[in-house]
Amino acid sequence: METNTITGTTVIDIPAGQSPKRNWRQWLIGSPLQTGDAPKQTIGKMIGLAVFASDALSSTAYATQEIMTILATVAVTGVMKFVFPISIGIFALMAIVTISYEQTIHAYPGGGGAYIVARDNLGELPAQTAGAALLTDYILTVAVSVSSGVAQIVSAFPGLYNYRVIVAVAMVLLIMLINLRGVKESGTLFAIPTYFFVITMFLTVVMGFYRFFTGSLTTVINPPEITAVQTLTVVTPFLLLHAFASGTSALTGIEAISNGITAFKEPRSRNAGITLLWMSGILGSLFLSISFLAGKIGAVPSDYETVISQLARTVYGNQGILYLAIIAGTAVILVMAANTAFADFPRLSALHAGDGFLPRQLTFRGSRLVYSRGIVSLAILASLAIIIFQANVTRLIALYAIGVFLSFTLSQAGMARRWWKSGHLKPGEEIVEPGSTVIHDKNWKFKMVINGFGAICTFVVMIVFAVTKFKDGAWIIITLIPILVTVFFAIHHHYKELAHKLSLEHYSGIRVDHQRVVVLIAGVHRGSLAALAYARSLSTDVTAVHVSTDPVESKKVREKWTMYGEGTRLVVLDSPYRLLIEPLLDYIEKLLAIRAKNEVLTIVVPQFVPSHWYENLLHNQTASLLRLALLFKPGLVILEVPYLV
Amino acid sequence: METNTITGTTVIDIPAGQSPKRNWRQWLIGSPLQTGDAPKQTIGKMIGLAVFASDALSSTAYATQEIMTILATVAVTGVMKFVFPISIGIFALMAIVTISYEQTIHAYPGGGGAYIVARDNLGELPAQTAGAALLTDYILTVAVSVSSGVAQIVSAFPGLYNYRVIVAVAMVLLIMLINLRGVKESGTLFAIPTYFFVITMFLTVVMGFYRFFTGSLTTVINPPEITAVQTLTVVTPFLLLHAFASGTSALTGIEAISNGITAFKEPRSRNAGITLLWMSGILGSLFLSISFLAGKIGAVPSDYETVISQLARTVYGNQGILYLAIIAGTAVILVMAANTAFADFPRLSALHAGDGFLPRQLTFRGSRLVYSRGIVSLAILASLAIIIFQANVTRLIALYAIGVFLSFTLSQAGMARRWWKSGHLKPGEEIVEPGSTVIHDKNWKFKMVINGFGAICTFVVMIVFAVTKFKDGAWIIITLIPILVTVFFAIHHHYKELAHKLSLEHYSGIRVDHQRVVVLIAGVHRGSLAALAYARSLSTDVTAVHVSTDPVESKKVREKWTMYGEGTRLVVLDSPYRLLIEPLLDYIEKLLAIRAKNEVLTIVVPQFVPSHWYENLLHNQTASLLRLALLFKPGLVILEVPYLV
Repeated sequence: METNTITGTTVIDIPAGQSPKRNWRQWLIGSPLQTGDAPKQTIGKMIGLAVFASDALSSTAYATQEIMTILATVAVTGVMKFVFPISIGIFALMAIVTISYEQTIHAYPGGGGAYIVARDNLGELPAQTAGAALLTDYILTVAVSVSSGVAQIVSAFPGLYNYRVIVAVAMVLLIMLINLRGVKESGTLFAIPTYFFVITMFLTVVMGFYRFFTGSLTTVINPPEITAVQTLTVVTPFLLLHAFASGTSALTGIEAISNGITAFKEPRSRNAGITLLWMSGILGSLFLSISFLAGKIGAVPSDYETVISQLARTVYGNQGILYLAIIAGTAVILVMAANTAFADFPRLSALHAGDGFLPRQLTFRGSRLVYSRGIVSLAILASLAIIIFQANVTRLIALYAIGVFLSFTLSQAGMARRWWKSGHLKPGEEIVEPGSTVIHDKNWKFKMVINGFGAICTFVVMIVFAVTKFKDGAWIIITLIPILVTVFFAIHHHYKELAHKLSLEHYSGIRVDHQRVVVLIAGVHRGSLAALAYARSLSTDVTAVHVSTDPVESKKVREKWTMYGEGTRLVVLDSPYRLLIEPLLDYIEKLLAIRAKNEVLTIVVPQFVPSHWYENLLHNQTASLLRLALLFKPGLVILEVPYLV
Repeated sequence: METNTITGTTVIDIPAGQSPKRNWRQWLIGSPLQTGDAPKQTIGKMIGLAVFASDALSSTAYATQEIMTILATVAVTGVMKFVFPISIGIFALMAIVTISYEQTIHAYPGGGGAYIVARDNLGELPAQTAGAALLTDYILTVAVSVSSGVAQIVSAFPGLYNYRVIVAVAMVLLIMLINLRGVKESGTLFAIPTYFFVITMFLTVVMGFYRFFTGSLTTVINPPEITAVQTLTVVTPFLLLHAFASGTSALTGIEAISNGITAFKEPRSRNAGITLLWMSGILGSLFLSISFLAGKIGAVPSDYETVISQLARTVYGNQGILYLAIIAGTAVILVMAANTAFADFPRLSALHAGDGFLPRQLTFRGSRLVYSRGIVSLAILASLAIIIFQANVTRLIALYAIGVFLSFTLSQAGMARRWWKSGHLKPGEEIVEPGSTVIHDKNWKFKMVINGFGAICTFVVMIVFAVTKFKDGAWIIITLIPILVTVFFAIHHHYKELAHKLSLEHYSGIRVDHQRVVVLIAGVHRGSLAALAYARSLSTDVTAVHVSTDPVESKKVREKWTMYGEGTRLVVLDSPYRLLIEPLLDYIEKLLAIRAKNEVLTIVVPQFVPSHWYENLLHNQTASLLRLALLFKPGLVILEVPYLV
């Protein structure tokens, strides 16, 4: 207990009791963690790679195939020779983006997602745009990754083709549960399959090159049916750009580490930066190798068998244990790639919410210290996307990468602007921003050029993507992002206005001088008399009100009231139309109209409290109806006094 | 204003304001009626016949066909010759029941439904059983009548066959609307089609007999496909009883007038009794004629064309205007027959509710003086029955008549007992019962024999029905009625116990000596300070409570509180698991445990009041959650003080 020596106000601290009781939720997601446990929940580089790289690495499972799917729409022999050159273009883009993000990670040790970088350097509108792009992107990451994972499984077990949507949704819910347990546990859980994938994939690629150089690599035996429809007869620049756009899905997930820097062990920036380089190295080499080998073996794009499956069975010459290992590894990493989004979406939406652009409840950390509401929201939205697009990767991809490149562009542009600011500071000067502090950097020109070049490249790719894939579904995202940004600003406006209204500036005290109390009386019995006793303890100005819908009943109330009403005046409202709420509202409004300054009107409603919820069906819900009708009146308080107080 | 001269209690009467404003509901169901208007809402014999006889008369549309449907399951030529003898048996039963009910109507001028007669003479259990039987019966009346009406329409327009369920449900909703307007208006609306049906049906029958006696009546040309499956090879007594049971559906609706006596103009009993005789006369003659003619023309039972349709096109020799008139007349009276149930179900359920065996809300009369909740409940339940049984008359009939005959039996048995009581009274003596007064009747023995014989006959028919139709669906009703009776008694027990608890016997006054007030403080702002001001006006014993989930936030609250808390003590509850409700519940329970006698604990929750419902999504619903968690605690009142009081 402490008492302020000036105002005399006493503050009493009550420590927490024992930890909450176990129930089914704790059985599912684990025992609660204390707030003080939070900083310990960080991870090293090995587990960091597993948690944050699965999204990026897993895109090797579909990026090559998506390039081929677009090329397959042209009826020209040998069109697949463009796959490798396009892949080299994408590899170059990947290198540019990686270098750009490497600078971001070191500049923002507290987490440098596109949202924070844009907010600190470009302003609120670009920041909210980046945020909206990223949030939709995370939802699609889950949908695309899980759908592609299911497609791998279907390649090995064609009988599952008709159940792909339900299997995909079940997987999303499983990942949700794992994430509700918390990041550290899920990191350990995910490390084994991520490394299993990396090893089996490298093994396949190395084996492929060995057979290629020894001349023993054959083409695909019994290739699956091509599902693309041939609509063109010549190879146009538009077609090549379209295929390139599809392939850029390989870049998705590169930003994951920069968003999640705070999850790393100290020194955070260094650990995160090294992890990013590892990740891009693995991603680039695998992607290029797969594109090269897929061309050599004459793989075809199909809904029934993935390119990875065709490559594996051609390289190994059979569908034995090694084939099944790579299919399993790919499927599992894809499904787990969704985990990246489950790590980032809740964190980003909590950031938005903390800044007042999303509902505040998203900042609430659940019993396991994770943003549970964000995790559950993501699972629901991703499941919806899977159901709407029937777990079809190609249809989902058309919506996917545009948000990624929009956030890349804003993030790199923000970084370029930051270096410009840095260059105009004198050594020792600093600008403190919410995300990080800007200090003078002598290499600011070089760094600004790198980030500026990254911004220009990703902006051009975004435009290419939007134009070439507009009809395929990109229009949905192009429409959605402005709507989301508008909603974010509307929410922000609401919170800002409320904060202004509640602010204690120019506060001169609020006083309640007079309590006018009205007790509703349906009948005279112990319940209503208890409410009367309560009302009389609140104020000396108490009026009982009875609505008369039945003259016989009313007569009884009048008679009993003279005996039991303890002298309290009774007002009988005549209701010839047998309405209950309306005459009361009328009366209450009249009382509010004559309300004095600093007077509060309190309505006391005697309320039956059931032992079982269904007993409510046997009673009128007057209090609830009244509450609903009077919700917006100022100067009015409604309270229910339970029968048998 | 009147002041009691002994206790000094003042009662103020406030007359009603203007009638309620017009809105969409009034546009649909008409302007509100005052309670004082009620007695004017009565009807004469002509309209009484239209309102109450449509159920009984309309059963001529399907009773003959249902006999044939059962006979068609035997593969014996000429089996249809049994239709007419079975119909004569049913006609005899009809006469017995009519005479029985004639006596009831004169003994119970206040309405002598099976429920009232059984309640006054046999006791609560038989009364509730009769009530349960009748209520299920009314639901099925709506389902059967509307389904058969749609079957008539499908006969003339086969293209509608696949839409029969949706058409039937739409019709139920239309009848519901008409009934929500009130009985007088619906009576006028229904008189024209009822008489149109009676006239066209008699015209068809007379024409049929004319052609039969002149020898020009042919058999049905192109008879429809028989939909019954032939499972038997010999005519067994069981088969004949089964067919008889199906035909007894012709008797349904005979009791309607005795339930609705109060709706008639004075002298009620006389008017109602004459109407009953008219009704039975029309019903019996039409039913016998249709059964006779259907046999002569060789009509067959089918789902695709009704027997009435076959009869009409054979009698008229074509499908011209007269054919369409009889189909339309039959369809409309069937759909309107459902109206009988809409007149009786709400009245009976209000009776049950008034006696405390159904939720009290069913006694509430809506703005048009009808029991609106009963009407809406009936529409919902009947629509469900139609959807479940796919508007198939034969399947619904198996559930139907058992409840009717159970209530017939109980009603007649009750009447027999009443005459016995009457015989043992001296002239001039009387027994006053809620439903009517028993006086000495010199013909008591004769009247007792008539009702007793009626009871025995209907009891035997009920057993026949239950046995022969058990597997077809009667088991559902045989199971359901005991369940309903159990629920009725459970509801009764609840109300009785509550009334006992609330009773003012041995009442020695309730006092509230001390108010302990707790204000929840999430942050210190105008909203919470308004709640504090309110709390301080209730009591001098005020404690502010803050749940600390975030140390930074808590520190701010402490600091601001010493400035703005007006010296009120602040309790800070530490919540390391970031739970909000649980630490509060803990604290409140501790306060309740040390509660003194006559002390009340009041929890004040500052509450944001949104201008739009969706703004609620942006705020925690602490007050609602708390209310839910604390609902069952005695000695506790929760109230919300809106921000910006």
